Amino acid sequence: MSFNPPHPLSYRKALESFLLEDWGAGDWTTNAVPDRQMWGKVVAKNNLVVAGLPVAKEVFHLTDPTFEVDFFVQDGDKLATGTEVMVVKGSSRNILMAERVMLNLLQRLSGTATLTRQFVEAVDGTGAKILDTRKTTPGLKLLEKYAVRCGGGFNHRVNLADGILIKENHISAAGGIRTAVATARLSSPNLLRIEVEVETLEQLEECLSISDIDGALLDNMNENTMKNAVLLRNSINKHFFLEASGNISLLNVKSISETGVDFLSIGALTHSAPAADLSMRIG
Amino acid sequence: MSFNPPHPLSYRKALESFLLEDWGAGDWTTNAVPDRQMWGKVVAKNNLVVAGLPVAKEVFHLTDPTFEVDFFVQDGDKLATGTEVMVVKGSSRNILMAERVMLNLLQRLSGTATLTRQFVEAVDGTGAKILDTRKTTPGLKLLEKYAVRCGGGFNHRVNLADGILIKENHISAAGGIRTAVATARLSSPNLLRIEVEVETLEQLEECLSISDIDGALLDNMNENTMKNAVLLRNSINKHFFLEASGNISLLNVKSISETGVDFLSIGALTHSAPAADLSMRIG
Amino acid sequence: MSFNPPHPLSYRKALESFLLEDWGAGDWTTNAVPDRQMWGKVVAKNNLVVAGLPVAKEVFHLTDPTFEVDFFVQDGDKLATGTEVMVVKGSSRNILMAERVMLNLLQRLSGTATLTRQFVEAVDGTGAKILDTRKTTPGLKLLEKYAVRCGGGFNHRVNLADGILIKENHISAAGGIRTAVATARLSSPNLLRIEVEVETLEQLEECLSISDIDGALLDNMNENTMKNAVLLRNSINKHFFLEASGNISLLNVKSISETGVDFLSIGALTHSAPAADLSMRIG
Amino acid sequence: MSFNPPHPLSYRKALESFLLEDWGAGDWTTNAVPDRQMWGKVVAKNNLVVAGLPVAKEVFHLTDPTFEVDFFVQDGDKLATGTEVMVVKGSSRNILMAERVMLNLLQRLSGTATLTRQFVEAVDGTGAKILDTRKTTPGLKLLEKYAVRCGGGFNHRVNLADGILIKENHISAAGGIRTAVATARLSSPNLLRIEVEVETLEQLEECLSISDIDGALLDNMNENTMKNAVLLRNSINKHFFLEASGNISLLNVKSISETGVDFLSIGALTHSAPAADLSMRIG
Amino acid sequence: MSFNPPHPLSYRKALESFLLEDWGAGDWTTNAVPDRQMWGKVVAKNNLVVAGLPVAKEVFHLTDPTFEVDFFVQDGDKLATGTEVMVVKGSSRNILMAERVMLNLLQRLSGTATLTRQFVEAVDGTGAKILDTRKTTPGLKLLEKYAVRCGGGFNHRVNLADGILIKENHISAAGGIRTAVATARLSSPNLLRIEVEVETLEQLEECLSISDIDGALLDNMNENTMKNAVLLRNSINKHFFLEASGNISLLNVKSISETGVDFLSIGALTHSAPAADLSMRIG
Amino acid sequence: MSFNPPHPLSYRKALESFLLEDWGAGDWTTNAVPDRQMWGKVVAKNNLVVAGLPVAKEVFHLTDPTFEVDFFVQDGDKLATGTEVMVVKGSSRNILMAERVMLNLLQRLSGTATLTRQFVEAVDGTGAKILDTRKTTPGLKLLEKYAVRCGGGFNHRVNLADGILIKENHISAAGGIRTAVATARLSSPNLLRIEVEVETLEQLEECLSISDIDGALLDNMNENTMKNAVLLRNSINKHFFLEASGNISLLNVKSISETGVDFLSIGALTHSAPAADLSMRIG
Repeated sequence: MSFNPPHPLSYRKALESFLLEDWGAGDWTTNAVPDRQMWGKVVAKNNLVVAGLPVAKEVFHLTDPTFEVDFFVQDGDKLATGTEVMVVKGSSRNILMAERVMLNLLQRLSGTATLTRQFVEAVDGTGAKILDTRKTTPGLKLLEKYAVRCGGGFNHRVNLADGILIKENHISAAGGIRTAVATARLSSPNLLRIEVEVETLEQLEECLSISDIDGALLDNMNENTMKNAVLLRNSINKHFFLEASGNISLLNVKSISETGVDFLSIGALTHSAPAADLSMRIG
Repeated sequence: MSFNPPHPLSYRKALESFLLEDWGAGDWTTNAVPDRQMWGKVVAKNNLVVAGLPVAKEVFHLTDPTFEVDFFVQDGDKLATGTEVMVVKGSSRNILMAERVMLNLLQRLSGTATLTRQFVEAVDGTGAKILDTRKTTPGLKLLEKYAVRCGGGFNHRVNLADGILIKENHISAAGGIRTAVATARLSSPNLLRIEVEVETLEQLEECLSISDIDGALLDNMNENTMKNAVLLRNSINKHFFLEASGNISLLNVKSISETGVDFLSIGALTHSAPAADLSMRIG
Repeated sequence: MSFNPPHPLSYRKALESFLLEDWGAGDWTTNAVPDRQMWGKVVAKNNLVVAGLPVAKEVFHLTDPTFEVDFFVQDGDKLATGTEVMVVKGSSRNILMAERVMLNLLQRLSGTATLTRQFVEAVDGTGAKILDTRKTTPGLKLLEKYAVRCGGGFNHRVNLADGILIKENHISAAGGIRTAVATARLSSPNLLRIEVEVETLEQLEECLSISDIDGALLDNMNENTMKNAVLLRNSINKHFFLEASGNISLLNVKSISETGVDFLSIGALTHSAPAADLSMRIG
Repeated sequence: MSFNPPHPLSYRKALESFLLEDWGAGDWTTNAVPDRQMWGKVVAKNNLVVAGLPVAKEVFHLTDPTFEVDFFVQDGDKLATGTEVMVVKGSSRNILMAERVMLNLLQRLSGTATLTRQFVEAVDGTGAKILDTRKTTPGLKLLEKYAVRCGGGFNHRVNLADGILIKENHISAAGGIRTAVATARLSSPNLLRIEVEVETLEQLEECLSISDIDGALLDNMNENTMKNAVLLRNSINKHFFLEASGNISLLNVKSISETGVDFLSIGALTHSAPAADLSMRIG
Repeated sequence: MSFNPPHPLSYRKALESFLLEDWGAGDWTTNAVPDRQMWGKVVAKNNLVVAGLPVAKEVFHLTDPTFEVDFFVQDGDKLATGTEVMVVKGSSRNILMAERVMLNLLQRLSGTATLTRQFVEAVDGTGAKILDTRKTTPGLKLLEKYAVRCGGGFNHRVNLADGILIKENHISAAGGIRTAVATARLSSPNLLRIEVEVETLEQLEECLSISDIDGALLDNMNENTMKNAVLLRNSINKHFFLEASGNISLLNVKSISETGVDFLSIGALTHSAPAADLSMRIG
Repeated sequence: MSFNPPHPLSYRKALESFLLEDWGAGDWTTNAVPDRQMWGKVVAKNNLVVAGLPVAKEVFHLTDPTFEVDFFVQDGDKLATGTEVMVVKGSSRNILMAERVMLNLLQRLSGTATLTRQFVEAVDGTGAKILDTRKTTPGLKLLEKYAVRCGGGFNHRVNLADGILIKENHISAAGGIRTAVATARLSSPNLLRIEVEVETLEQLEECLSISDIDGALLDNMNENTMKNAVLLRNSINKHFFLEASGNISLLNVKSISETGVDFLSIGALTHSAPAADLSMRIG
């Protein structure tokens, strides 16, 4: 199964700048010793879900197009401590110059995939889906959205342009939900859905009465209110989706998912996932 | 006190690309409602050490040069939950377009500063210094190094070019520590120091006997060995520095620092710091 | 009324490269004569709908930040031959260096707005909406999409990521409409709608039976079939939208719109609109 | 025969940005269906002159270096409706991601080549040459200049730096033709010719008396005056060239060329050529 | 008098990259001491012709837009040792960060202007003009061409596109001068002149018989042959220009110019001019 | 022996921009004649030390990836007039388009290597090392630093970030050497050494008493004072290095090196080296 990594053209220039950022004026230490043929094996030092293998490969090939790179696992695989992930063979100098940037990316993306998988497994059986947010690392958005997919999560809006999310602020500026929605529907591309952020059941009820609204984001509601929101939705329009958002952790995600909401969006997947522990063994 | 933020020229283009990454083809939702004068106040939602204020300001001004931006605190300040951090005044559309990227950066940098401060406070009184590593977020290296300084930490090498760090791999390629050091000293700029990674006291002793070596990185040593390393160093050359590295956490940092090493380097400062909780209140 | 021009950050670098492309190694002719204070007035040389004024202003200010630029009309205005559009005052050298690129953009965007307005007026009263396509000039997509809005048209997908449009090829690769739709719904961000391209009423009927499909693109259907498609749609799901596409011209757009379809998408708006006739008078 | 396409290095980065502009955050639709081996054949849907084949090939190879691409015709060929132009073989996903940008470029360039050819054929036998102008699409100048050559036309100045064209405004700023020309000759690279824009026969006569002037642009003259201009030129200096400019259309180009002018420059070749009708058939 | 510096847009991005190249990860030394208000005066430490003042100013303003910068002299001025050139006032940190790049540029451009002036003065009274070549420093072409003008020299082709220079290699590939010239004339923009490189008087005579050739480059001819070349030219076509090229130094430039050639082109102006001695005094 | 050329990724984009700078809108002359298979041999026209071969090869391959390129010598080799340096085989058009930029780089870098070697040979036997400075050509720093190494010289700081060099200005801002050094040591990465610029023996004596200072730059001292500086240093700390700087030429370098200083830094290596004489012979 493929989680559809972004096209390399969409991140290759970023990788080049990452390498140059890490090299500065060059690697004096490595240049001081003779070059030789070497292999480097990336190994999991903890249990983790791996993500970013094509990115790691691209980092290696930007550094040295003659590298031989092979994968032992696939993105999205759940690995036990000690699992060998990939191997690179070639010039020792170039391997050492690529190592840090490659690991920085692979650890970060696998960290997001691993945390995502923990949330996904926590809600297993409820039918609820784990969503990311726009709280991604600046410059790494497409890669982190991909890591979320590798973890079993789903992508919310990638950027401001691919979805309409009407918040309190938009509503008050427009003078009411109905006006805000009508204007947004009229002025936005037709293939975008409209979601409205609500804080009360009254607001949700109003949304359910407006045919141009496709779903609602339940902002920081308690679980009881969420349950009632689901009941209300079910009684009016089963195609209308409900997304829970705000303060969702591994401790409460299961019970929130059991309220019957369709989606749970979690900023921490991309802004606070600890790096997965991966290192490179050389020989 | 200033922690010397990077010159804006060194990150302005990155900020522009971060904004465009988040905007995609534009913000349909915000465009659907009338523009108006608004203020946005960034507020700490938890106890934290703030870092990145000049970056946040630059994000705002790249979006709208007419914004009025004021700070209520300074980078490096320790803030209690609820503290107002900064305020922006101007077009509601532009504030909303800048908000997410600004917060993503400020939360990330403050997250690093906050975690760094926790380590710094843990070793308070020992004279040991907390160092970062090259395990930074690709594309954000200079900003994260700055965040570490705001947290009270110190910077290890920024990139491969500004320091010589000879590892096991270099030693074996060169055929021994002495040769590796001699070649590196000869071929590298004279203003760079030389640090050698050691795993045993025997290796450390050899290093202490070579006048071109300025210090050693004690790689994953246990605390007892570190104590002996300090004794050995003290008996031979007090100007020779010792850096502890590997598996340092808030749980063991205090006792490691009490071994007498000079530096403790911690990758987690930049690769695993959870985002600090900051949000924007508008009115 | 504002048609929401793109944020200048999203096209400023492109404008800079356009100026450098036109200047080459510099304007020897203009450099050979003395500089002086001058004004340049952009004038409509034909009836047209103007679009691109903020872009023209930005071209001027990139060339010379001290220019005084004023508009006499607004984007979206319908102008008669001879109408003065805008004025720039400042260094004659810089005005002459900016002139050609400024006009090339303004003529092109106004050309698209003018053609769009002709289509919009042709379907006036039918409730049908004129849509653009992805057949835009490479490098000018956001600006041309804006010009379509200035002309009174609406934007279809800006890029491949902000909407799901399932074509014959996707259907056959997936092994049927139902599978293609189900997979797309599952793997794509939740705020994107799904449109399916159909060539027959049978296909349309199948689409109408699948709740995850939001609308259909009627590909090169004749008007009679389109009428039947509208009847079919009306009898099953009035919220399901219909878009006519293929060979729509000013000659047939009126009668096609009278079939009752909701949208008519027209590639010519952006790929074949003749430049609007605008020139600069100086003094 | 080769029309000398620009070197790929001069447009490759532009093509990359065009692809990313069209992809946005990725092609959700195509990613939802299985990848497979596919072919795509570009076919002429109308009579046209093709231009841009190397550009189309480069678009394909930037998307997927493993594509096999073959041409059935050459740039500059006049094609009948239905002619197969080129074929690409490879991953269906990548072909579909490249298709739109490739066609947008090929249609536009072929549109310019086709319109140019119509003008060229209209003046056939008169010895007059069809010239383009600087009224090109911003960002596509080198490619459109090439398309004009494929159509049988010739290039006027590519940018402001490769030729001296003294207009009314320069003359008045310099205080007369003679001064303007003398200064321009002195201050500009020696390998550039000097052309002067004239509106009357008196101005032309003055130009003919100045040895540093190589030719004149007859600005919006009527055909009778042009005939007299040619007579005047022939009587004084046969090496002095005459270029007709302004309001030249397919209706009047033949009779203008029969006045005996050497060049006819036509902005519409690049600012108003309708896209040539080309599409991709897949299998 | 102005020598027409390039438009800042054509070199601003280069200046930004030059600053970042010199700063690396930042100026630790300067950051370690307190910032204060300071002035820096650029002073000539030797006799020289200054060139590059607007470039120096731009370097300062890119580093700090609040700097006050004033000039005491103008580009092209001949300065005696000790002359104050310009002054900058503002933050000491920013002045010190800008200093080196500013001086590197100003010294290099003034070096070229100074050497050019020496050649210009050496041929004073002969009517011969000193030309540069395409042997410029990669990345600095427009600035160095400007420095040559400040020195009193003239620009040969800036790049391959703005002039036709037919060399031996082109002639043999085309099968003779006449064919090469005819094809070049037909395929190149009409505002470009044609120059042919010749090594013998026979070749020159052939060139003089072809009306499409505007001048000849006398390649490494001795002075006697050059004199005969001038006689030959004068007897056939006084408008045909002659350019001497190859091994021209300050020792022989005077006598070469007295042969009667119109131009002397000298690669050393841009590839071997020693840096002019300028430094910054601070207070 | 390898002098460790910079990684191609660190200069490839610069080379691309150099080629485009030299090509402008294309090479009309070369395009006018038939393409054919050709070889080009780079030949030394004078005695010189060659530097930049991998750069020259990259220029060729960016222009045409199918070129066959072979070296007859290695960077750092001392060549006699007439020595063949490298050969390229392939399309004549592409060779001619790459030639000028390739030679401009190779001549410049070999010029620096040649001048460096002259200084190195002049101090042969004294143990003193020749250093470069930050007075490099903007945009070419890494390549010129490499050329210095090819010449047998050593690199001083590449940029402001990789070494601490405390000058008079820093000392006065800090209020004394001791404070300046203490702050710099505390705030800068630990792997950077500290060098202090001194003008008198008194200042040197103070520096020798501060353990955090690694060496001193003797600024424009006369040779006698330098000798005393060496005596002073030898009597206090033999590991403390001394660098002579200012007005060092081939005339005085030998006697300065005999004072016993460790390093002599010479700006002229990069700012005033005349281009080495290399040309391309074709066939």
